[in-house]
Amino acid sequence: MINDKLPKIWYGGDYNPEQWGPEVWEEDQRMFKLAGIDVVTINVFSWALNQPEENTYDFNWLDETMDRLHRNGVGVVLATSTAAHPAWMAKRYPDVTRTDFYGRKRTFGGRHNSCPNSPTYRKYSRLIAGKLAERYKDHPALLLWHVSNEYGGYCYCDNCTAEFRVWVQSRYNSIDSVNKAWNTRFWGHTFYDWDEIVLPNGLSEEGEGNVSAFQGISLDYRRFMSDSLLECYIIEAEEIRTHSSNVPITTNLMGNFGQLNYFDWAKHMDIISWDNYPSLTTPVSETAMVHDLMRGLKDGDPFMLMEQTPSQQNWQAYNSLKRPGVMRLWSYQAVARGADTVLFFQMRRSIGACEKFHGAVIEHVGHEQTRVFRECADLGEELMRLGDTLLDARTEAKVAIVYDWENRWAIEMSSGPTVDLQYPSEVHKYYDALFKLGIQADIVSVDADFSKYEIVIAPVMYMVKKGFAQKTESFVSEGGTFVTTFFSGIVNENDLVTVGGYPGELRKLLGIWAEEIDVLPAGQFNQLVMNKPIGKLEGSYPCELLFDLIHAESAEVLAEYGSEFYKGMPALTVNSFGKGQAYYVATSASSEFLQGFLSNLCQDKGVNPLIPNIPAGVEASQRVKEGRSFLFLLNHNADPVTVDIGEVTLEDLLTGETISLNAVLPGRGVMILTEQVHPK
Amino acid sequence: MINDKLPKIWYGGDYNPEQWGPEVWEEDQRMFKLAGIDVVTINVFSWALNQPEENTYDFNWLDETMDRLHRNGVGVVLATSTAAHPAWMAKRYPDVTRTDFYGRKRTFGGRHNSCPNSPTYRKYSRLIAGKLAERYKDHPALLLWHVSNEYGGYCYCDNCTAEFRVWVQSRYNSIDSVNKAWNTRFWGHTFYDWDEIVLPNGLSEEGEGNVSAFQGISLDYRRFMSDSLLECYIIEAEEIRTHSSNVPITTNLMGNFGQLNYFDWAKHMDIISWDNYPSLTTPVSETAMVHDLMRGLKDGDPFMLMEQTPSQQNWQAYNSLKRPGVMRLWSYQAVARGADTVLFFQMRRSIGACEKFHGAVIEHVGHEQTRVFRECADLGEELMRLGDTLLDARTEAKVAIVYDWENRWAIEMSSGPTVDLQYPSEVHKYYDALFKLGIQADIVSVDADFSKYEIVIAPVMYMVKKGFAQKTESFVSEGGTFVTTFFSGIVNENDLVTVGGYPGELRKLLGIWAEEIDVLPAGQFNQLVMNKPIGKLEGSYPCELLFDLIHAESAEVLAEYGSEFYKGMPALTVNSFGKGQAYYVATSASSEFLQGFLSNLCQDKGVNPLIPNIPAGVEASQRVKEGRSFLFLLNHNADPVTVDIGEVTLEDLLTGETISLNAVLPGRGVMILTEQVHPK
Amino acid sequence: MINDKLPKIWYGGDYNPEQWGPEVWEEDQRMFKLAGIDVVTINVFSWALNQPEENTYDFNWLDETMDRLHRNGVGVVLATSTAAHPAWMAKRYPDVTRTDFYGRKRTFGGRHNSCPNSPTYRKYSRLIAGKLAERYKDHPALLLWHVSNEYGGYCYCDNCTAEFRVWVQSRYNSIDSVNKAWNTRFWGHTFYDWDEIVLPNGLSEEGEGNVSAFQGISLDYRRFMSDSLLECYIIEAEEIRTHSSNVPITTNLMGNFGQLNYFDWAKHMDIISWDNYPSLTTPVSETAMVHDLMRGLKDGDPFMLMEQTPSQQNWQAYNSLKRPGVMRLWSYQAVARGADTVLFFQMRRSIGACEKFHGAVIEHVGHEQTRVFRECADLGEELMRLGDTLLDARTEAKVAIVYDWENRWAIEMSSGPTVDLQYPSEVHKYYDALFKLGIQADIVSVDADFSKYEIVIAPVMYMVKKGFAQKTESFVSEGGTFVTTFFSGIVNENDLVTVGGYPGELRKLLGIWAEEIDVLPAGQFNQLVMNKPIGKLEGSYPCELLFDLIHAESAEVLAEYGSEFYKGMPALTVNSFGKGQAYYVATSASSEFLQGFLSNLCQDKGVNPLIPNIPAGVEASQRVKEGRSFLFLLNHNADPVTVDIGEVTLEDLLTGETISLNAVLPGRGVMILTEQVHPK
Repeated sequence: MINDKLPKIWYGGDYNPEQWGPEVWEEDQRMFKLAGIDVVTINVFSWALNQPEENTYDFNWLDETMDRLHRNGVGVVLATSTAAHPAWMAKRYPDVTRTDFYGRKRTFGGRHNSCPNSPTYRKYSRLIAGKLAERYKDHPALLLWHVSNEYGGYCYCDNCTAEFRVWVQSRYNSIDSVNKAWNTRFWGHTFYDWDEIVLPNGLSEEGEGNVSAFQGISLDYRRFMSDSLLECYIIEAEEIRTHSSNVPITTNLMGNFGQLNYFDWAKHMDIISWDNYPSLTTPVSETAMVHDLMRGLKDGDPFMLMEQTPSQQNWQAYNSLKRPGVMRLWSYQAVARGADTVLFFQMRRSIGACEKFHGAVIEHVGHEQTRVFRECADLGEELMRLGDTLLDARTEAKVAIVYDWENRWAIEMSSGPTVDLQYPSEVHKYYDALFKLGIQADIVSVDADFSKYEIVIAPVMYMVKKGFAQKTESFVSEGGTFVTTFFSGIVNENDLVTVGGYPGELRKLLGIWAEEIDVLPAGQFNQLVMNKPIGKLEGSYPCELLFDLIHAESAEVLAEYGSEFYKGMPALTVNSFGKGQAYYVATSASSEFLQGFLSNLCQDKGVNPLIPNIPAGVEASQRVKEGRSFLFLLNHNADPVTVDIGEVTLEDLLTGETISLNAVLPGRGVMILTEQVHPK
Repeated sequence: MINDKLPKIWYGGDYNPEQWGPEVWEEDQRMFKLAGIDVVTINVFSWALNQPEENTYDFNWLDETMDRLHRNGVGVVLATSTAAHPAWMAKRYPDVTRTDFYGRKRTFGGRHNSCPNSPTYRKYSRLIAGKLAERYKDHPALLLWHVSNEYGGYCYCDNCTAEFRVWVQSRYNSIDSVNKAWNTRFWGHTFYDWDEIVLPNGLSEEGEGNVSAFQGISLDYRRFMSDSLLECYIIEAEEIRTHSSNVPITTNLMGNFGQLNYFDWAKHMDIISWDNYPSLTTPVSETAMVHDLMRGLKDGDPFMLMEQTPSQQNWQAYNSLKRPGVMRLWSYQAVARGADTVLFFQMRRSIGACEKFHGAVIEHVGHEQTRVFRECADLGEELMRLGDTLLDARTEAKVAIVYDWENRWAIEMSSGPTVDLQYPSEVHKYYDALFKLGIQADIVSVDADFSKYEIVIAPVMYMVKKGFAQKTESFVSEGGTFVTTFFSGIVNENDLVTVGGYPGELRKLLGIWAEEIDVLPAGQFNQLVMNKPIGKLEGSYPCELLFDLIHAESAEVLAEYGSEFYKGMPALTVNSFGKGQAYYVATSASSEFLQGFLSNLCQDKGVNPLIPNIPAGVEASQRVKEGRSFLFLLNHNADPVTVDIGEVTLEDLLTGETISLNAVLPGRGVMILTEQVHPK
Repeated sequence: MINDKLPKIWYGGDYNPEQWGPEVWEEDQRMFKLAGIDVVTINVFSWALNQPEENTYDFNWLDETMDRLHRNGVGVVLATSTAAHPAWMAKRYPDVTRTDFYGRKRTFGGRHNSCPNSPTYRKYSRLIAGKLAERYKDHPALLLWHVSNEYGGYCYCDNCTAEFRVWVQSRYNSIDSVNKAWNTRFWGHTFYDWDEIVLPNGLSEEGEGNVSAFQGISLDYRRFMSDSLLECYIIEAEEIRTHSSNVPITTNLMGNFGQLNYFDWAKHMDIISWDNYPSLTTPVSETAMVHDLMRGLKDGDPFMLMEQTPSQQNWQAYNSLKRPGVMRLWSYQAVARGADTVLFFQMRRSIGACEKFHGAVIEHVGHEQTRVFRECADLGEELMRLGDTLLDARTEAKVAIVYDWENRWAIEMSSGPTVDLQYPSEVHKYYDALFKLGIQADIVSVDADFSKYEIVIAPVMYMVKKGFAQKTESFVSEGGTFVTTFFSGIVNENDLVTVGGYPGELRKLLGIWAEEIDVLPAGQFNQLVMNKPIGKLEGSYPCELLFDLIHAESAEVLAEYGSEFYKGMPALTVNSFGKGQAYYVATSASSEFLQGFLSNLCQDKGVNPLIPNIPAGVEASQRVKEGRSFLFLLNHNADPVTVDIGEVTLEDLLTGETISLNAVLPGRGVMILTEQVHPK
């Protein structure tokens, strides 16, 4: 439980009373009660207000706010206000502003705008975090600390350059090791002194769109930036802990965000929280995947849905309204996948600046007679009824998908073989196939313990770090099933190729050698032709993007290419290794193929879908608590659908209804099916 | 009359004799005579020539040019030459060059290149304007002063920053007011000192494509820049007036140009002049609209067509030739809509630099045996024959369309709800419907007197400034018809939302409440379904872009949405208010709908088309002088067309022919129909 | 012969042993032997290794490498290592790094990264070139000097600015001449002092995509930059020659690369070498054209294919593999068109940084059991067998196509008339028509001697430099056939228009006057309608892009436009001039037209195709040595094809087979047909 002061699914979200006056504050409390809101996040962007000048702090407004919220029974997620530095700080200490990719010093503006290596920023963010912790640590409204906000954004200033040299030195010890790690003999880049190293950007090694001339340097820069921003978090978190050791600390992550290695971050966070902003056209399985990724950051611990919009966003190209029922549906999607909170950005729409067209529980009209408010209030009431039933429930998956940010960076920065390879979308293809089959999966890091899974899938495992191959071999030799794909096993953690034949360190396990890698432009396809029918797989499936030209060594060939000069070469292989199997999918295959392929694998390993024959557009997810199972059924269709749940009789936790054989879900409807518990 | 020295439609244009030598000058005069050219604009880009160094002025070439033109009967529009500073000035006083959106200091180059707040630029532009005025004020060739050229271009230098702080201070007085106006409590932007304010650009609040994080700041920056550039104009104009108080002063505007609030500028100009550069694919109604906008800047006063190309441009992607007859047709389009001049850029094509592929009356071949010259000469002769007949004629419209640059800025800078909303094109949709119906309209500012109109249309009146709502209520209560659309009444002049329900200050007048605003991506449509047939409206019409979800309060619902979850909600309403009606079109409707809708409204108010059943591609416009009406018929089709003019007999001013019942216009033909005047 | 130490087609390529260790070096030698590799290029990017600090040079690794290669019978192309400066140099002497188009000073990174006017770069590049020459001039492995690598990239720093002023002064002597040459009276740009001149870039006269406000300045800047980079080459080459006067010197060019005027460069190179990187979708005739252009740089002298990939590239969007046979086919294409070497980038794939996905003879797997290696080894063996037979063979063409980089620059920088006009692709249209007809052509400069050709084609000869018109008139009056097109004869070498009627200086020769130039947008066509059938031309052909509206003066009209207002005006004319003819193609015509048109012309002039009725996809090219002819037939199709070679009996040099009447080429097959030589 996040904080046992509030033993239920938290409901509420971001609240900025400082943008309003007293008459509104009382009205807010009335509206919160109407909507069942019991938690708000405050003080996210109030640094300039809290610290009007260098040596003056003024928390009166915050004292009053905390007290008022508490009086009204609303708990507080208390942010540290360091997500945007004050204007006076930018003016007096220019080191707090960032320098951009082209070396341009920024002035004052925006948010998330501080150089992570600015001494000024670090000094004052630590100070204010400490002052807040000291002041509010025992406040009865306090539920959770929320450090800064949506960390992100790189900097290329002189301070960052100096710190990068220190970081590199501490990672590699000697300049010779650096030269080796970055392969600087290429293009005559040998460094003889730490001070010769400069940041990789638009003035040195990188161009538009992430491509780098030296992936090794650029990779380390990203590690360094992720670390630098993480240090900013740690500085504040540690300062808070010296005063307030019993209240958990988080910061809100951004799901699939590319700049930070969240697996590193998770180690320093008491609970994961994240902001979920799909567009109306985002595949629901993509949102589900990101929830699972967030749950995977701390090995399956429940997490917080920290932000979502009740209605619409402002920063997308087309900010369509969430259709009636969609906000509730997507809220339960989060809960179904491990969230123990349902929080919004934001409580009340601001009247000026760039988020005034972002939806809020309380719209500009100000009263409760809106569709949006009604949907919020209905959900608030429902969550109240759920109480603590679902809290701390966990997920039991037998299939894991490996996700690695450093692998993603290396793939994105590569020059060749194709501009179309996007690591997250290749991962999503496999996730989506499982999702459509109704099979629960965990998303795990490359450092995860595989032994608890039956099947581990590592799409495009381009970068194989130290120990990964050995660990995977053990997993398979003990009976596990491993799946990887084209463009895997190519490089080590410095993006240096493992010579001796692709897939490098994975070659023995997979029993293949990939001699060449072909590319076809977008829109051109080859075929993956099954040698013989296997389970649900039969005939020919389109494939695209990259095509490894592989030779089976110890592996068995299950499918071949159907055209091009490598027609007849293996496109799908399986290698028996110890007690297990290792599969190689040599190209990017169609969804139909992947569903058949993964269905076969799961069947072989006795991994069953949550629901067999799950209808299109229906999502199934299960959480388990103290032996009791909660099966979420989410109908993403606008129309009703009937789900065959098998010969069981269950209770819908939301309605108390008894459901046998068939569950009939209304359009955008939700059920949480569980064993019937007879009233005590 | 612009200047009674030349009582006819002025004919000629930009002339740069300084690019040529004496042998060409005499030939120019011969050609001018052949073409009927009686006015030229000179000295536009001659600053470096006039002032070869800081303390030296040399106007000998200009003396000779003025004299030669006068000897040959050609009048002069005399520019002040400040549209491009000399190279020596940029070198000696770098404050004259601009700093761009990304903070990059420009060197020397281009044109319209001076920082508007450069002390050096202001000093020397004032000085040279004064010297020119003193020297030529009594020159017999002088017809008009032309300050600088096509003002535009923003600057982000330190001088501009300093001046912006002064401007802001003078607008808001206290830093508290600034904080309130810009809603700086959002994202912790509170300012405590004037010097903390920086310009909104790519280093602070703005990104590519105009979107700002703080619309309030960006809006004020645009106001400040429009003012700054206007001050440059005023400095020169005032200096001229101290010497030459009887000759009118102008500068050439650029129609629908987005950077400057031309309504502000017009107050300081003696006559409006503008440069008209449609491409061959620009809708003719768009050109017509911009002419009307220019006419509207000074409440319907005749204006000058200062520039157009006789044949082709150079700066468009595809610079097709104006087809035979098109130059004449578009010249008369200008006259039809209020122009008392027909001027070209330029007299003779330059031989080098970026405008050498821009058309001219005298082509590179140099002689008069060209299609272009012949068309020019024919028109020159025709305009000569027209004499002063049309001069000072005005337009009598009963329909006004409101246009507001500040509203445009605010819409363009908004983050959300859709990237596709373009204010000028929404205005054009309404204009175009009237155009196709043959109904004369004025384009007016938000400050205009509405009382002389029957119908006032304010498309996407997003920003409602102080007094606008009250004025409009008065207009309607006295019997006027008011039309506005989706996304109106949202914010005040600082882009702060009027809370309490959209359309804010217009809510009472319109009798509706817009609860939400939905968005569909480009290419997706809803339908506007009439509740019952009304006049020409019946059935269903496609609509797109934005969809206000409105509730009729006192208003009557005329049409509803045909699909989406708000199917059945009002899409078109009318509210009776006093003696008049206020309409709300809740979405962006098709041209067919708008024609029917506006046709109904005009019929209700007794506003008649100039021509009933006007054929497609034919434009009608009317000017009136001392009770005599001139009906322009312009056939934009390549083929002949017959126009039913009703049971009247009129005279074509251009040919003297008598026209009854039907006017047969050749392809690209023009008629100016007027009551027959019997020869005295 | 490039160097008589190795009297055969050199085979090998770039080799970077410094990226590897001793165990690999010996393996390399074994692999080289297997593949028949006898030449490698080394030391291209080893500056940092050779000169670890300012006053220290260390060539031990290079000594060993040279010796080892020599011991193994491999010759060396020795590069000077100046293609990327050391990191310490960038740190200590920031003048070596470039300043970009927007005035941003670059730090350290990438390659080809030195400011060409950096005193530091010039000093140290001269020094190291001298040291290398002194040390290795007599090394038995040394075959050729290779200065730097792929010169290119402009700089906009203060040193370049200062040098540009010197360059301009030396070209024009007086500031008045500069003002005239650049037409600075336009837009008030008159310069009074050399120091007022700034570089044309994104802070002054130029925008994105090459368009300039002052083409004269921008043109001279490109000349200056081409000269500046060339000076860097000359500095090194001269220093080498002081020590090593007998070994030839080259640098590797990049074919159709836009930034440098290679005709100027060729004068200073002992032999032309270039890097050939078509994508799989590049038309084969385009590659052929560039080979011919490279051959034309030194009047038909054989050249070196310095780089090509054995398999795939890394820097294109989609880096598809060269299909089996394609590497050999394209290697022979180079030889067919004048190459006396077949060299690859590179010998062994690097393991890190941005070229690790670029193909190599030795792949990452490291052994010889790869498709790529086998193809390389097969070709190596074949080339070995060819010995010196083809060396120094030349090409005998009767048709010349004029190509001019300065013309290209001027066209690209023009503002108008259309964004779609690309000079190289217009040249290619004519080349491609000849290619498809099997007619051999030379690509020549505007300074070439035309007298040895029957037909000279100068597509889009927009810029006519001093003497060109007179030379062409002499050529035609002596019986030559000249062809030029729309948009020709417009400007002089400073991009100043030749007034008096287009095509200016070519008007007399062509007997036409182009009154206007129309433009149609992409995808819109006019028609070129033959007045009567002529040879293979009959009826109507589509044409696009630009349309000169011409009047025949002394010329005869052969075809007219089929639509638009200039329907019936001439679209194709011929003028008899002395004993010859001058043709004008007034628009961009279809391939079908151009083939018919050029076929007619060749027939008239007795210029025969190498093969009549050459099948689609087959390329024919001929080299001649001491009276013996070698006819290359290259089948670019994947399927076999039969070529009718006429009633002759020839021998295929590659197989020794006797070929009569029909040559049957396998898919991607090659034949080199020559007179049978009876064994001595």
